[in-house]
Amino acid sequence: MSEPAANRQVLIDSLPEDKLTIENYRVATAPVPSPGPDQVLCRTLVLTIGAGTRAGLQGSASYAGAPKTNVVMNGSAVSRVVESTSDRFKPGDLVACPAGWQDYSVHPATGLTRVDDDVDPAHYLGALGTNGLTAYFGLLDLADPAPGKTVLVSAAAGSVGHMVGQIAHIKGARTVGITSTEQKCQLLTDRIGFDAAVSYRSPDFRNELKAACPDGVDIYFDNTGGDILGTALRRMNEHGRIICCGVVSQYDTSNPAAAPTGIPGLLVNKRIRMEGFLVFDYAARYEAARAEIKGWITSGKLNPLNDEFDGLEQAPAAFVDLLAGGNVGTRIIRVAT
Amino acid sequence: MSEPAANRQVLIDSLPEDKLTIENYRVATAPVPSPGPDQVLCRTLVLTIGAGTRAGLQGSASYAGAPKTNVVMNGSAVSRVVESTSDRFKPGDLVACPAGWQDYSVHPATGLTRVDDDVDPAHYLGALGTNGLTAYFGLLDLADPAPGKTVLVSAAAGSVGHMVGQIAHIKGARTVGITSTEQKCQLLTDRIGFDAAVSYRSPDFRNELKAACPDGVDIYFDNTGGDILGTALRRMNEHGRIICCGVVSQYDTSNPAAAPTGIPGLLVNKRIRMEGFLVFDYAARYEAARAEIKGWITSGKLNPLNDEFDGLEQAPAAFVDLLAGGNVGTRIIRVAT
Repeated sequence: MSEPAANRQVLIDSLPEDKLTIENYRVATAPVPSPGPDQVLCRTLVLTIGAGTRAGLQGSASYAGAPKTNVVMNGSAVSRVVESTSDRFKPGDLVACPAGWQDYSVHPATGLTRVDDDVDPAHYLGALGTNGLTAYFGLLDLADPAPGKTVLVSAAAGSVGHMVGQIAHIKGARTVGITSTEQKCQLLTDRIGFDAAVSYRSPDFRNELKAACPDGVDIYFDNTGGDILGTALRRMNEHGRIICCGVVSQYDTSNPAAAPTGIPGLLVNKRIRMEGFLVFDYAARYEAARAEIKGWITSGKLNPLNDEFDGLEQAPAAFVDLLAGGNVGTRIIRVAT
Repeated sequence: MSEPAANRQVLIDSLPEDKLTIENYRVATAPVPSPGPDQVLCRTLVLTIGAGTRAGLQGSASYAGAPKTNVVMNGSAVSRVVESTSDRFKPGDLVACPAGWQDYSVHPATGLTRVDDDVDPAHYLGALGTNGLTAYFGLLDLADPAPGKTVLVSAAAGSVGHMVGQIAHIKGARTVGITSTEQKCQLLTDRIGFDAAVSYRSPDFRNELKAACPDGVDIYFDNTGGDILGTALRRMNEHGRIICCGVVSQYDTSNPAAAPTGIPGLLVNKRIRMEGFLVFDYAARYEAARAEIKGWITSGKLNPLNDEFDGLEQAPAAFVDLLAGGNVGTRIIRVAT
């Protein structure tokens, strides 16, 4: 493989004051870095973008720390090893790495996870990556989906949400998805196997949700917060569980709204448990979880969806579209093959 | 005992539109009722009033159902049996019963709980009654207070709160109370054994709370909701527990405020579990809990406080004062001896 000439990078040009736009980013070119001792130079193949990344541009409210400009936008990738000074990796190996939005990145060998080349590498950013693991641990560790229970999921067509619905279905629960459009509702029931789906943009959302959950909701997997959480809260059964995974309704604004009324009052009256989690706490169990999810994919029980943009320079547009609710499944940027 | 002449009753005259006032009640006189088969006529000795009762005047938001006027105000009592058609009780027995705000009440024998006459009957409405049991089960079943942990309690001078602080202390935790005045702060630290206390009315409440919890908060027992919950949330440690017991800040209004910002965002980032409960779910374990609490009282480890008004006609004023934060310990109305 000949030495690459230059490293295209997408930098954070400015911090969004309200809605994120593609003008908050700029494309630049830098020299391709060289690996130091025990480091690995990686060529980005596929990148993913999750809505949670938006919180990183919001400062102290996020677990990611204060935001900076003129740095490469962060993002997870599957990359191919180009050059390695570590015994652990050789050129051609595939690795999961925090590449960021750029063609090439250098990492300590200890920071890399080898991935198999038996499936589309994009799956390692979706069903087998952080998003799939988030769905898996959030749903199965914080609640107990089972036959007879109703599991409600918001952002149900999203990367985490569409996995939650399918895992709940595998466990025998009735599954109801909340999403943004009629078209996505159809996709959830026809292609993802949800038992019912409702658009929160419908003028009759509350009643439609009620009709879709005739036995109430036992487990609500909340990816949105805000008004959708408030509406779901009123459908919860006694002793229900609310799994707090993300707050996508609040990411793309500099002025987060108040939480819905009914907290904590309805939590008391209905004896509801509401619990937040971060997937990183489960790192020691990632491998076992990946093996189980891969088994579901191989046996055809689980059908992960990837939603692709082509070319590194499309990453800002793909992110803006994602925040507007445009995605289905895991948003993937194909950077190279 | 001669036949009683009349039954004084305090009726709900009108539903409060905003703050509850004594004008929402009126005193009336009715004939003393007679017990039917397997029923018991009881003379009210002591009544208690809890802030949670206010929610019952607010309609569908409450677990108590829709409110009515021209009925006797509900309330728990310890009463003396006057007349009984049941083999299970005889005149002179002491019982806990839902007497309501009146001198005499009739109950099915199966609805009564016999109480011992070895302690002040008022204790059966406080430390050994619903309030003490609420503190006991909420704190010990939903969290795990232990040495090295900080337990924060709101409405800490209240009937539930002052018990939570003392039970947490018995379990070895550091205890911090939130209350309304400097005077109550002093009482919490000097007489109830709290390690620190802070007034939420202080202009520097946030910083004072921070200083009182140098190692953050592991367990927050929330009796208030609203802004105090929001402030406490920002002091929570990762993997902390919030026990949702009541929403006193929201009871005395017809226009409940939104929940604080940071829900569910901070629950996710800090992996916090927030859980509501109702003490009635633990009825099967009441007797064992009462035995343990009585042991703590007898051994001097626990010092329950009762806060007394004298005379049935004082009940409305005692309730209004309670909602304004005037009470310390369990509010008791002495009706008869």
